Amino acid sequence: MKYKLGCDLDYQVDSFSTFIFNFRIAQIDCQKIISEHLQLDPDVHIDEFAAPVLENRYFRVNVSPGTNLRVSYRAEVEMSHFYGDPNQIMEIQPAELPKATWPYLYPSRFCQSDRLVNLALSEFGGELMGYSRVTAICNWIFDKVYYQYGTSSSHTSAFDTATERIGVCRDFAHLGIAFCRALNIPARFVSSYAYGLTIPDFHACFEAYLGNRWYLFDATRLAPQNGIVRIGTGRDAADVSIATIFGNVSMNDMRIFIEHIPDLDCPGIPEPTTEAIAIL
Amino acid sequence: MKYKLGCDLDYQVDSFSTFIFNFRIAQIDCQKIISEHLQLDPDVHIDEFAAPVLENRYFRVNVSPGTNLRVSYRAEVEMSHFYGDPNQIMEIQPAELPKATWPYLYPSRFCQSDRLVNLALSEFGGELMGYSRVTAICNWIFDKVYYQYGTSSSHTSAFDTATERIGVCRDFAHLGIAFCRALNIPARFVSSYAYGLTIPDFHACFEAYLGNRWYLFDATRLAPQNGIVRIGTGRDAADVSIATIFGNVSMNDMRIFIEHIPDLDCPGIPEPTTEAIAIL
Amino acid sequence: MKYKLGCDLDYQVDSFSTFIFNFRIAQIDCQKIISEHLQLDPDVHIDEFAAPVLENRYFRVNVSPGTNLRVSYRAEVEMSHFYGDPNQIMEIQPAELPKATWPYLYPSRFCQSDRLVNLALSEFGGELMGYSRVTAICNWIFDKVYYQYGTSSSHTSAFDTATERIGVCRDFAHLGIAFCRALNIPARFVSSYAYGLTIPDFHACFEAYLGNRWYLFDATRLAPQNGIVRIGTGRDAADVSIATIFGNVSMNDMRIFIEHIPDLDCPGIPEPTTEAIAIL
Amino acid sequence: MKYKLGCDLDYQVDSFSTFIFNFRIAQIDCQKIISEHLQLDPDVHIDEFAAPVLENRYFRVNVSPGTNLRVSYRAEVEMSHFYGDPNQIMEIQPAELPKATWPYLYPSRFCQSDRLVNLALSEFGGELMGYSRVTAICNWIFDKVYYQYGTSSSHTSAFDTATERIGVCRDFAHLGIAFCRALNIPARFVSSYAYGLTIPDFHACFEAYLGNRWYLFDATRLAPQNGIVRIGTGRDAADVSIATIFGNVSMNDMRIFIEHIPDLDCPGIPEPTTEAIAIL
Repeated sequence: MKYKLGCDLDYQVDSFSTFIFNFRIAQIDCQKIISEHLQLDPDVHIDEFAAPVLENRYFRVNVSPGTNLRVSYRAEVEMSHFYGDPNQIMEIQPAELPKATWPYLYPSRFCQSDRLVNLALSEFGGELMGYSRVTAICNWIFDKVYYQYGTSSSHTSAFDTATERIGVCRDFAHLGIAFCRALNIPARFVSSYAYGLTIPDFHACFEAYLGNRWYLFDATRLAPQNGIVRIGTGRDAADVSIATIFGNVSMNDMRIFIEHIPDLDCPGIPEPTTEAIAIL
Repeated sequence: MKYKLGCDLDYQVDSFSTFIFNFRIAQIDCQKIISEHLQLDPDVHIDEFAAPVLENRYFRVNVSPGTNLRVSYRAEVEMSHFYGDPNQIMEIQPAELPKATWPYLYPSRFCQSDRLVNLALSEFGGELMGYSRVTAICNWIFDKVYYQYGTSSSHTSAFDTATERIGVCRDFAHLGIAFCRALNIPARFVSSYAYGLTIPDFHACFEAYLGNRWYLFDATRLAPQNGIVRIGTGRDAADVSIATIFGNVSMNDMRIFIEHIPDLDCPGIPEPTTEAIAIL
Repeated sequence: MKYKLGCDLDYQVDSFSTFIFNFRIAQIDCQKIISEHLQLDPDVHIDEFAAPVLENRYFRVNVSPGTNLRVSYRAEVEMSHFYGDPNQIMEIQPAELPKATWPYLYPSRFCQSDRLVNLALSEFGGELMGYSRVTAICNWIFDKVYYQYGTSSSHTSAFDTATERIGVCRDFAHLGIAFCRALNIPARFVSSYAYGLTIPDFHACFEAYLGNRWYLFDATRLAPQNGIVRIGTGRDAADVSIATIFGNVSMNDMRIFIEHIPDLDCPGIPEPTTEAIAIL
Repeated sequence: MKYKLGCDLDYQVDSFSTFIFNFRIAQIDCQKIISEHLQLDPDVHIDEFAAPVLENRYFRVNVSPGTNLRVSYRAEVEMSHFYGDPNQIMEIQPAELPKATWPYLYPSRFCQSDRLVNLALSEFGGELMGYSRVTAICNWIFDKVYYQYGTSSSHTSAFDTATERIGVCRDFAHLGIAFCRALNIPARFVSSYAYGLTIPDFHACFEAYLGNRWYLFDATRLAPQNGIVRIGTGRDAADVSIATIFGNVSMNDMRIFIEHIPDLDCPGIPEPTTEAIAIL
């Protein structure tokens, strides 16, 4: 499945400012980057960092005061996820979890799993363990939390959303992650471009570690899972901000787009699937 | 139904201190006080206040440093609640609610009903309106919140308990109140002596305004409803503290007791009832 | 000092809805209402309530679906506050506080004084007790909290503002109240019309009980104290909402105005004063 | 400077349980481990992990139900920190910060730096930038926060402590970290054995990244900085729990000790220093 995607960001920079950007798509086995083009106007120096597998492709630019910074990014990518049978995917017990997954068991800024343990046990403790339990979590969130723009803020956390029951994709992901961790399932945050959003924007969903893979879950049901092109991976939104800005900056404009490129593999449009989807 | 009850409080007072006590039983139509005795040692002056119907019987004492203050209270009371048929008790719409009930519609320190609206609608919005909806709230709390001493603090609020799902009688009452208010049902906090508690202590439950009466609810199910002898009534625990203390004071001991006095009306022991119970 | 003031509220009502309004100015000794006119279009029945001294002048209206409700209020008022010498105004110790002030010692929804005790003692414990200590609180808030529209929400509380240090008049009042209560000074919320606001709106400030009177404080410094015409009084904003709405309603428009009517007593414009101002 | 240290942990294990322990001292250049001995009784299999520089030396054990697990750890260590002149240590601007420090700029579970920005700027924005600014943060915490056992819980965060002003070493460290991050200074949590504590226990302090090194800070002033023998490093306490336990386990006993071993380098007892101390 192939996508063409990109973003255009336009900032007014009023003081010397440093940006740490994180909007380029991840260089991982299941995302083959066919082409990629990044342009900044003015053409400031890009302080780039090596990107080991799954690591976020942060880059830093420093910008002089009085600059109108325009950032343009275009990429073509071919996706080839692992598809699994949901019924065959087990939870891994703490006794067996690989060490690399441990950081994703602990609570983080927006996913206070330590305070959601009783709630998670009460709602999902009786569910059959495995992929279907995380599906139950996503269904619960989809059923009980209203999706509505402008109802949450950058401070809103899973603890808030558990009760306030309203938010956006980021809040849905945080709550899903917090529930998983509360049940000892490692879970992490994924920022992305997502095919099919009604209002084009960056998107957030999450991954849970099951059966020795990281499986993708999106409680918002706003995009087909194989239409989610990963940007960054982290404990929660705090780790994978699209742009961390140090300085006096205001945003003039932000545009995001993603289009499907039909091919033999996927001649029609991407559709939701009931298969389990994981990174390779 | 008659009860004999009381408390003994023992404080070490290290600086000049003011106590506002609120542990005497309410003088209301359904609680006929047969006898009452209050003793303080040393015999400090009691600054007492008239107690209009349902108003808390606060009294204030000022105590010198170096005092060992011992407070002893004994009372005999005859209870005669209104008993109603739960199926006949309707909710009163905001269009009709008496003004005196309005303060109990608003959020308070420990009952942040404004933040629980979506949760309350999601869980109880579909319930049949009326007494049974408040019963559903109590059942939900009883089923989903663990009752355990020492798990919450004096700062714990309904917003915390909604997710943390653990607490004591006070937390159960706060959550019940918050849910009711979020559904536009006036609700208020009741401090009490309660017959039948395994561990003798002051108790907390709540009232909801339905069908033109204040009906009593206790989500803990720790005492029969007609075994609850009211002390104070307020928006939440902040209003009806047993003792508000200004000064450097430590508690040495606190003992609470309540016994049933059998009579013709109730020759056996008080039992839980499925009737709706309200103050007269 | 005389003012002419009013408001126009315009609502689209999409379901049967109940409004509890609270925007009429208080009928208190220091506010002599010269004239007052309230008009609703359509001319729905007003369910009005007697207004004892200082009690909020709530009124209720029920409105049919599909209505465009327009509410118009005009009043002329003559203010005559008590003016005192700040240096002569003492704090009243808990041992002496009148019972009527006690409810304003306890924490409330937006003023969690119980959690601000150490902060209040650390910042203001060393201040000279009395009017000047509350002035110190107001100066602290004015110096340390940014006043900025749109930065806080209806859920924001004093506990948030103590650290986030940003908000609007309501947040300034809540923080002032919480600090006072944490220091055992009764304090309460005042909603008002306020002369001299740059952007006309309803205003919030607070009162502290000192020297046997309720003195007015406004940490925002946005209006002269004698330009504050009281609407309601309560524990915090939860008690004195301008409009509590039950139903599916959206606001089309809201306009507030207040003008000074020059007279012999005050021929120029009202100015800030360093005197202490209290209600009679 | 040499220390002998260790701990004895004793657990009652009631269900099949997994422990992830993290109490062994870090293998880093400034901590030369002279000897080390770890013993478990019963002698269960230790699932150990390679420990790259600065990484936590987690190990996992699985324990059968009905076991009384006793863990004993002893080590001798020689410390050789980098000592710098506080006046020469500058802050590094975001434009220059190494990428490895970025994760410690972001908010975490217990260090909500995103909500403390205004407070940090208000209190420390005017301070001279550099080592002395972090010293000012520590002095502020020492002066304004009461150190008292049992006053905070495992859920207490920097946002709470900023206002509640009471806590233990962990809370002091979280607040210091949150302030640093709010000022764009990378900061991280350090768990440790600490020489000189009045009540022997594990200890927590923090590091800030300044002048291209991680400098150690301890706002509690309970131990000399060169008496802090590092166990783990993380974003906050969530990352470096001494024991993460999955299963039904209760602790019977916990003992911690650390002794100074006098030598030529340090013949007397370790003393507080005003020098800046960093890891090599």
